[in-house]
Amino acid sequence: MLKSVTVFAPATVANVGCGFDIFGFAVNVPGDIAKVTLREAPGVDIVRITGDDGRLPKSAEKNTAGFAALRYLKTIKSNQGVEIELHKNLPLGSGMGSSAASAVAVLFAINHLFEHALSKHELLPIAIEAEKLACGSAHADNVAPALFGGFVLIRENNPPDIIELPVPAELHCSLIHPEIVIRTEDARNILDPMVPLKDAVKQWGNTAGLVAGLYSQDYELIGRSLQDHIIESRRATLIPHFHEIKQAALQAGALGCSISGSGPSVFALSQSRTKAQIVADAMQAVLNREGIDNQVYVSGVNQNGPKIIDQEE
Amino acid sequence: MLKSVTVFAPATVANVGCGFDIFGFAVNVPGDIAKVTLREAPGVDIVRITGDDGRLPKSAEKNTAGFAALRYLKTIKSNQGVEIELHKNLPLGSGMGSSAASAVAVLFAINHLFEHALSKHELLPIAIEAEKLACGSAHADNVAPALFGGFVLIRENNPPDIIELPVPAELHCSLIHPEIVIRTEDARNILDPMVPLKDAVKQWGNTAGLVAGLYSQDYELIGRSLQDHIIESRRATLIPHFHEIKQAALQAGALGCSISGSGPSVFALSQSRTKAQIVADAMQAVLNREGIDNQVYVSGVNQNGPKIIDQEE
Repeated sequence: MLKSVTVFAPATVANVGCGFDIFGFAVNVPGDIAKVTLREAPGVDIVRITGDDGRLPKSAEKNTAGFAALRYLKTIKSNQGVEIELHKNLPLGSGMGSSAASAVAVLFAINHLFEHALSKHELLPIAIEAEKLACGSAHADNVAPALFGGFVLIRENNPPDIIELPVPAELHCSLIHPEIVIRTEDARNILDPMVPLKDAVKQWGNTAGLVAGLYSQDYELIGRSLQDHIIESRRATLIPHFHEIKQAALQAGALGCSISGSGPSVFALSQSRTKAQIVADAMQAVLNREGIDNQVYVSGVNQNGPKIIDQEE
Repeated sequence: MLKSVTVFAPATVANVGCGFDIFGFAVNVPGDIAKVTLREAPGVDIVRITGDDGRLPKSAEKNTAGFAALRYLKTIKSNQGVEIELHKNLPLGSGMGSSAASAVAVLFAINHLFEHALSKHELLPIAIEAEKLACGSAHADNVAPALFGGFVLIRENNPPDIIELPVPAELHCSLIHPEIVIRTEDARNILDPMVPLKDAVKQWGNTAGLVAGLYSQDYELIGRSLQDHIIESRRATLIPHFHEIKQAALQAGALGCSISGSGPSVFALSQSRTKAQIVADAMQAVLNREGIDNQVYVSGVNQNGPKIIDQEE
């Protein structure tokens, strides 16, 4: 039996423009890394966290990743325990699915240690519960793409109805993270509980259009469908220079551009890696000009979700 | 050159549960029939209408089909004119796209007489304008499926962005028309201009799910996605015994059931013609028991739109 497994789990872009609370996709970089080590003593200990500037709780029950491990052990009724090392490459509150990546990395690792006792579909509800601990609501739009990879439709959150959508091969993502923090809760509170029916109709035309574009590999249709008529204008007020970043991305040839998750990260989709790099540079130029620290990533859509990067017997 | 052409154009189911104003599909029966005859004298005359109990205007400018013909002739800058015979098999105000079928039948016929001077995509805006004359708003969710056949997504109405979706071979429709009249305008006025965001999210999850189900031929997913969380409960109040009809359809094995267009017709989708027939019988039994006159139809999804059924040199 394996003694320890180290897993990478990817960052994810939730909402994806038109699809507030229903779409998410995974990228190849960046992502979080978790090393999980089996031990005889029951329970879960988080022995080390790097990259969080000391901001994450180390108590297993209060930490998303620790909580996920506890739930996993309870679900499979194991008397053993684990130790967790967590290496955060994703900034907290970035809109790139930071907590989801940590929970999924740990769940994938521990499940590998227990010889795949659970399927990915069985891991999902545990990851959703862990996500609830982190951001106050049980949404699958980060954990599902982090776990399954690819482009995912969450038709329903409760119980989760997850549909894996096809991803056109040339689709690439530019992702920029301005170094400011937005709490998911604040980004939710800024939304109106009521929306105009006419805007909602445009929105569901676009969610349908985006799915059709993914299946038919129609990049232009994907681009037209990315438009968000309800959420973006609200949340954009929380992100400095959002409209200039978006305009720069579209002028550089992006198919579409919107807020990643609840922000402040901004994503754009393009048809080719080359185009996505040009778009990323254009987006970054805006923030650099304004003197806002940022990180930028260019990546294809991650097709596999978490991956094992090391293991010890 | 041909002298006259007779065309059948199909009834259509708009909205399709979750997709208010964005989805529509065509059926094989019933439909309207138009005979269009070329003449030297300019203008459009409606020489005969059957099946409307004298309720449709015969003045070309006020009649949907006549208006469509006038616009067509203007668009191709013809000095010739046409005479129209219209055989209405679709009841007016039925929610089965009666006016759209008439306009599309005439447009397809006249375009055939003029040797396909316009493409279907060029006919569409004319049909939409004609639809506006009939029901007060420029929506493509009946005319587009009547013209193109199949299952259609109207991502945007203005300018129309029409996406033809694939139709799984076993998908069949049961359609029942209770003999009461609902004006499209009344059915629109009963809707709230504002909707809860949480319901809108469910709705756009379902429109995305329905498209995914059509592409992946996942009948169960199609069924789960047909649910409408916003429109149906309002409009159901205008349709006698709607909830019993729906319950009967689902109990008989339908994938899903909702209001066709703005009603009062009700449609159900099933996986096989046999199942669709059983479902239709169950729906009809409810109305028969209540003593409400009705017509019921069972059909596959019409893949081709209008068809020529006769022509004269």
